[in-house]
Amino acid sequence: MIERDAEATRQRLLAAATIEFSQYGIAGARVDRIAAAARSNKAQIYHYFGSKNGLFDAVFGGHAQAAVEQEYFDASDLPGTAGWIFDNYEEHPELGRLVLWYRLERAGDAASIAALERANLAKIEKIRAAQEAGLVTDRFPPAVLLGLILTLTAAWTALPPEFAVLEREVPAGDRRGYVVAAVRRLVEP
Amino acid sequence: MIERDAEATRQRLLAAATIEFSQYGIAGARVDRIAAAARSNKAQIYHYFGSKNGLFDAVFGGHAQAAVEQEYFDASDLPGTAGWIFDNYEEHPELGRLVLWYRLERAGDAASIAALERANLAKIEKIRAAQEAGLVTDRFPPAVLLGLILTLTAAWTALPPEFAVLEREVPAGDRRGYVVAAVRRLVEP
Repeated sequence: MIERDAEATRQRLLAAATIEFSQYGIAGARVDRIAAAARSNKAQIYHYFGSKNGLFDAVFGGHAQAAVEQEYFDASDLPGTAGWIFDNYEEHPELGRLVLWYRLERAGDAASIAALERANLAKIEKIRAAQEAGLVTDRFPPAVLLGLILTLTAAWTALPPEFAVLEREVPAGDRRGYVVAAVRRLVEP
Repeated sequence: MIERDAEATRQRLLAAATIEFSQYGIAGARVDRIAAAARSNKAQIYHYFGSKNGLFDAVFGGHAQAAVEQEYFDASDLPGTAGWIFDNYEEHPELGRLVLWYRLERAGDAASIAALERANLAKIEKIRAAQEAGLVTDRFPPAVLLGLILTLTAAWTALPPEFAVLEREVPAGDRRGYVVAAVRRLVEP
């Protein structure tokens, strides 16, 4: 019962921290706001996670692990795969911001990198096989193709306001189709 | 003489603030570090810029204005234009991080948006004309094409560490060529 309570508290802290970090980043996040939102206290945060950086790593690592486990990746259908990744960003708008904060404030320290890198290496091998089978252009090395595809799928995430024109002129329902079409042009043999 | 000193101080503060904001963002930036690096003091920062946000807006607005004035954009040669933008990011690595911080911490507040949006609207009209002349695909609306091109040119800026594989496998000298080739595939009629 005590262990179950502890796990429930830990999960509430991770959920509250996801929202706080997504909004304010690491330097801007307030540990006391996270504690209050999770009906916990600062002492428990330091007990479970060691530090604010440790809490961020737990939040980011959890999302990265879930991404690695759930991710769909079909190298014989890279446009469809891009559509899947696009949908995932749309369903979890906080993820795009978390990734940006991670790149700016924490890149190089998070323990989750190894899992992400292994997942990327597996994708690169799948793309290489699809190239050898003639399904995908060999104009780009497989690692470059993966980087370009992931970049395009995130194109609409957290658009800066000087692209308000894109928001106005392009109905939200059309965006997925443009990303898929762009990846199709990029990868066609 | 006094006015010239004041302008020199202001320029030193802007240069020091560019480095500090690029590294730490707005919440993480320390006004006293900026003042020390510029051989100035906090009172002068508040006198010239009003607040830490005001200082960030001056830094970002200055770079945005310079970008708008200097930018090369030839809609009849979008791959070459992408190469030019890529070079600009390579020459000014602090800009990519500043843009990310701006998106996360300050989007919607900076006065520089109007100038950037006008510049983007002008580019969109150029792309529309190139489409009507048959030089560029009409598969995408011109605003979408601009967004996709700018996304691709920034693909290598501040690569996250789980893409270390990209750094290892792709020599730095080859990256520009891949970005240009990707944009060529995207825009061909």
